[in-house]
Amino acid sequence: METMFNPQSLVIFGLSAKQDNVPRLILENLLRWGYRGRILGVHPGGKETQVAGITMYQDVEELPIVPDLAVLLIPARFVPDMVKNCGRFGIRRMALLSGGFNELGEEGELLASRAVAHAKEYDVRFIGPNCLALANTRSGLCLPFVPIHKPPTGGFSMISQSGGLGIFHWNHLKNENVGLAKFASIGNKLDVSEVEVLEYLGKDPDTRIIGMYLESVTEGRALVEAAKKIDKPILIYKASVTQAGQQAAMSHTAALASDEGVMDSACKEAGIIRLHRFEDFIDVSKAFELPPLRGNRLMVMSPIGGGCVMMADNCENNGFVMADPGTAFYEDMQKKGNAGIIQFSNPLDLGDVYDMNHYASIFHGVMHSDGVDGAVYLSQWPDMPKTGEKDVFTKLFQTDVSREAIGAVRSSGKPLGAVLWGRSSTLDTIKQNLGYPLFNTPEGMIYGLAMQRDFYAKRLALAGEGNRPSAFCTNEVKKLIGQHTGDVGEDFLDVLSSHGIRVPESRMAVSEDEAVAVAEAMGYPVVLKVVSPDALHKSDVGGVKVGLRDGAAVARAHGEIRDALKKHLPLARFEGVRVVAMAQEGHDMFVGASQDPSFGPVVFFGYGGVFVEIFKDVDSLICPTTPEKVEDRLFALKSYALLEGARGGMKVDTRAFCQLVAKVSLLVAAHAEVVELDLNPVRIFKDGSVMTLDARARVVR
Amino acid sequence: METMFNPQSLVIFGLSAKQDNVPRLILENLLRWGYRGRILGVHPGGKETQVAGITMYQDVEELPIVPDLAVLLIPARFVPDMVKNCGRFGIRRMALLSGGFNELGEEGELLASRAVAHAKEYDVRFIGPNCLALANTRSGLCLPFVPIHKPPTGGFSMISQSGGLGIFHWNHLKNENVGLAKFASIGNKLDVSEVEVLEYLGKDPDTRIIGMYLESVTEGRALVEAAKKIDKPILIYKASVTQAGQQAAMSHTAALASDEGVMDSACKEAGIIRLHRFEDFIDVSKAFELPPLRGNRLMVMSPIGGGCVMMADNCENNGFVMADPGTAFYEDMQKKGNAGIIQFSNPLDLGDVYDMNHYASIFHGVMHSDGVDGAVYLSQWPDMPKTGEKDVFTKLFQTDVSREAIGAVRSSGKPLGAVLWGRSSTLDTIKQNLGYPLFNTPEGMIYGLAMQRDFYAKRLALAGEGNRPSAFCTNEVKKLIGQHTGDVGEDFLDVLSSHGIRVPESRMAVSEDEAVAVAEAMGYPVVLKVVSPDALHKSDVGGVKVGLRDGAAVARAHGEIRDALKKHLPLARFEGVRVVAMAQEGHDMFVGASQDPSFGPVVFFGYGGVFVEIFKDVDSLICPTTPEKVEDRLFALKSYALLEGARGGMKVDTRAFCQLVAKVSLLVAAHAEVVELDLNPVRIFKDGSVMTLDARARVVR
Repeated sequence: METMFNPQSLVIFGLSAKQDNVPRLILENLLRWGYRGRILGVHPGGKETQVAGITMYQDVEELPIVPDLAVLLIPARFVPDMVKNCGRFGIRRMALLSGGFNELGEEGELLASRAVAHAKEYDVRFIGPNCLALANTRSGLCLPFVPIHKPPTGGFSMISQSGGLGIFHWNHLKNENVGLAKFASIGNKLDVSEVEVLEYLGKDPDTRIIGMYLESVTEGRALVEAAKKIDKPILIYKASVTQAGQQAAMSHTAALASDEGVMDSACKEAGIIRLHRFEDFIDVSKAFELPPLRGNRLMVMSPIGGGCVMMADNCENNGFVMADPGTAFYEDMQKKGNAGIIQFSNPLDLGDVYDMNHYASIFHGVMHSDGVDGAVYLSQWPDMPKTGEKDVFTKLFQTDVSREAIGAVRSSGKPLGAVLWGRSSTLDTIKQNLGYPLFNTPEGMIYGLAMQRDFYAKRLALAGEGNRPSAFCTNEVKKLIGQHTGDVGEDFLDVLSSHGIRVPESRMAVSEDEAVAVAEAMGYPVVLKVVSPDALHKSDVGGVKVGLRDGAAVARAHGEIRDALKKHLPLARFEGVRVVAMAQEGHDMFVGASQDPSFGPVVFFGYGGVFVEIFKDVDSLICPTTPEKVEDRLFALKSYALLEGARGGMKVDTRAFCQLVAKVSLLVAAHAEVVELDLNPVRIFKDGSVMTLDARARVVR
Repeated sequence: METMFNPQSLVIFGLSAKQDNVPRLILENLLRWGYRGRILGVHPGGKETQVAGITMYQDVEELPIVPDLAVLLIPARFVPDMVKNCGRFGIRRMALLSGGFNELGEEGELLASRAVAHAKEYDVRFIGPNCLALANTRSGLCLPFVPIHKPPTGGFSMISQSGGLGIFHWNHLKNENVGLAKFASIGNKLDVSEVEVLEYLGKDPDTRIIGMYLESVTEGRALVEAAKKIDKPILIYKASVTQAGQQAAMSHTAALASDEGVMDSACKEAGIIRLHRFEDFIDVSKAFELPPLRGNRLMVMSPIGGGCVMMADNCENNGFVMADPGTAFYEDMQKKGNAGIIQFSNPLDLGDVYDMNHYASIFHGVMHSDGVDGAVYLSQWPDMPKTGEKDVFTKLFQTDVSREAIGAVRSSGKPLGAVLWGRSSTLDTIKQNLGYPLFNTPEGMIYGLAMQRDFYAKRLALAGEGNRPSAFCTNEVKKLIGQHTGDVGEDFLDVLSSHGIRVPESRMAVSEDEAVAVAEAMGYPVVLKVVSPDALHKSDVGGVKVGLRDGAAVARAHGEIRDALKKHLPLARFEGVRVVAMAQEGHDMFVGASQDPSFGPVVFFGYGGVFVEIFKDVDSLICPTTPEKVEDRLFALKSYALLEGARGGMKVDTRAFCQLVAKVSLLVAAHAEVVELDLNPVRIFKDGSVMTLDARARVVR
């Protein structure tokens, strides 16, 4: 990647001085951006000897040097051969910008696989195809083929699955004076993927914050692992394209796995900030330009009361609390009020302070108070009429207090977020000149600060965290799983049992008498279930009888089950019944697992029944995971209140349940063939112990 | 209000040419805005004969005419007498801008009540105090005392409880070229309230859309009634200030009533659009400048694929579906593609259409298709380098297609929302000149369109709706309620029963034998409950025995209850037991009601138990209401699935339940003394009939 972003020399294919030549736009961008490497041009069959001063060659073989990078924006049908020619000549890095490959039907697929094969043959690494490739504000590299000025240089780097959207976004970077470090449009990512670029940017000293626009996440697990190793904020906006026909799901888990929850959960685990408005890239980037927010206590300030109220509202919604700078501070403030018509508190309505000299000491006092972790401020710089002399309002709204504010920030090491409203042209100038981020809306500012706060808190937590446990499974379990294929019902309980998960005591009984004897030994009440290799869905064939309280009931049930099986499935083999001890009362939980196509094995858990199905009150974790992580997430579910004894219910210890979830995570991590697994219900008893009462699985080989 | 917004003459008090004189800023605004009425000035004890050409008088009595409006921005302590003087002189409208009244301690309260008394005495109507009063772009009236240019004239009117925030917001109106009609800052609203201004704006021909910023809603019910009569979009941003100490709630209902749900529900009922981001005022206003969206099918278009994906996402989140303009349209499109590397569908990626002449027919085709209700479009107008000739991208991104787009909109009568990105200075100019709203973000645009769609749909629905039923209650019910004060337990069931709400069959029995006889007659199983005027909480004194299946059990229970009462409350009077028939199985619902301090009687309902308490899956309606409205809201609850038979439960008809909720609404609407009421549970049986199993109420006189 380093060579791709910082090539010492490059060659552009298809270059020409003709009016409609698109590769020439790349050349112009390179010249405009001050790219300092050597630039060469190749145009097979072209008649020009130079284009804009660049020497042209007919063939790659004619080039005087082997350039670090070849840039291809030529019709797709010529690309595979050109990859081969470049590779043979010794070029090892390429940017394939052309479209018309695997995104477009069978013919394109063929071209794509040929290009990939040639690249492999010659050890060529490439970005694309079907992309805008790369840009680097430091080296002046600019491969996107749209005429474009250099955005401001800074610490924000962007990976975009949509090149166009990425380039469009530069408008915002310029308007908001958020500086760009590096840009990657990865297109069809037939070689270099977002994960590889992410890893590179994680180490890139120019990059302080990474933004990603993704439309599909195909290597979710690798993304999460890469993100966990990067100590920089990573912002992801994931477009979730409407899924037209979602395939029918066998299990609850399958239905859960197809929604966006897994992505959310994975981001949470990796400390990735997932954005839900595109414009948040800017607000969150600005927030990270401020000193870290190390706590939750904000001071809210504005010269207008409504601004205070609105910000306080937003602070509350983002989990902040109102800071208390102390009595001494307020007493000092009271002396600074003019008309004495406002009483000071937090939020701090500054509408009564007309002497702008006081602002310096207010900002300083707030930011240096031990009771304050950070502050937010809303004011305006309007397009005001000239009123002869400077009246109080012109002074109030057009006195530059940025020096005092920034000084207080730099001296305290705490963040002060500021929103300034006014005419866009005025704000534009202020933003370009201020050297300090100005936010456009209180909502965006406070959201950005919340993301910043959470990031630093999360990093602290991650720092103390050990490695992921390794997937673990005994040979016995492996063997048992090996005996199943396709949809498996409660027989899967045996697998779980041998994996150390407690299931109800049960024993086979062939005859009526044996069933009664087993039940007597086990203790009543019991459940009887039919045993037949031909009856997967036992209830459907009348094969389950619950709540049997004595020998007579067991004997009667045995007969009824046998008769019912014969009636429903005349050819089914009756092998006897399973006598199962009935479990005590408790909380019925849901645990599921699946193999996510992008994130690999994932485990789901939540309070069972409607809480999972209707309220979607469920969370997930990438497998394998630990009981501690499960506990963190379980605690955040709304239905956790039920386990705490809400509504006079039973309060239970959840540690054993969390261990069970972790155990399930080990099982599915070790067995990719278990593509779906439901443990439902998993009952938590009064003493905190757990038992899995039923299970189903889908095993695919 | 008409005189206030359009005074033919006005007098400003306290005017002076001195540098720090604030009333002079009002005068300057009036002159700057082109106010055409007569302006006079009064300054008791002032030496000036004229200020900026305005003749000054020492006393209101000296004025040559009785002005339509008096404007007071003088220290609060002088205000009450000045109100009196103005009233005596014959002035009937005043704007009190001064602060220092009831918002500031006891002394201020006194001044406030004196001012109100004087106003009443002379039939003076006033706005304020503690406000920026009024502005009217048509008449040139501008009373806010901050030097300010006139914003663009248009159809947006604003009522703001924070004058400062309202004025700050004008920056956005100017930047976004959203025209202002009228502005009202109502301050402490000691006379004119937001509801009165709202009613006026509802009839004001200059006002097409009404925005309100509110911090407290004290007349919620009047607000809702006023809003229902107004056929214009009303947007409310309600700041919900953190409630420090929320008083302990007796009932579920009290806890529910104190949150923001009632406000949400009331807005829904009145067709008010409730905003949750301040910036949405602009986006939603812009959306209402477009033709009405009469359906749900949107065409999504952009020259970049990522823009299409992002907008499609947002459309889905806002309940839109992808429109289908038909095969003929796509076939025509395919001919217009240049490179043939994009397949057309909806979202419509226009990245392959470089000939801008095609845009006219694409826009026209989309907007005129019967399969399309509206469209959204995202592009950019960047600050591009000059590339000698006009290259394809400069043409693509800097060709003005606004004429074609607007033409297609005006011809089809359907809305096309457009987002344009680019340098802020360029966009600023485009916005000022275009005469068509341009949105800043896809999120804001699509949200605005969704609000517009919902508004027109809601107006259609409201049009067919009759009047609210009148509160109704028999004398019998009135008499029964009269027998209770304070917290009432299940005895309130008798009130409900006489109001026509079915409760469990029950009969008193004094002796053991009588209890058995009653139970025999009633049929088993039964419940026995202690009857004692001294035992409000029956369970706490061992006074409830459930599931009694025969005479022996009833006899035993009778004795146990009597003994338990004696043990728990030795001095309590034992008057016998109540024998209650046990209800069948069913769905247990929650119904509650309370007297909201702002919205008056409100009824709450939802699936009982954790669904109300933990998941807050509950809705509310202002009382009295109709079964139809209850059904609409019930249907939207997540837990409605349970009534539909989710998870193999019982599917029930909910009509009787909805009738019950409506009945409860009549009861509390007729009886303000019933301040809290819980019916819990209300059981819906298999046949759809309902029974209220228990109730509690708080009656305050």
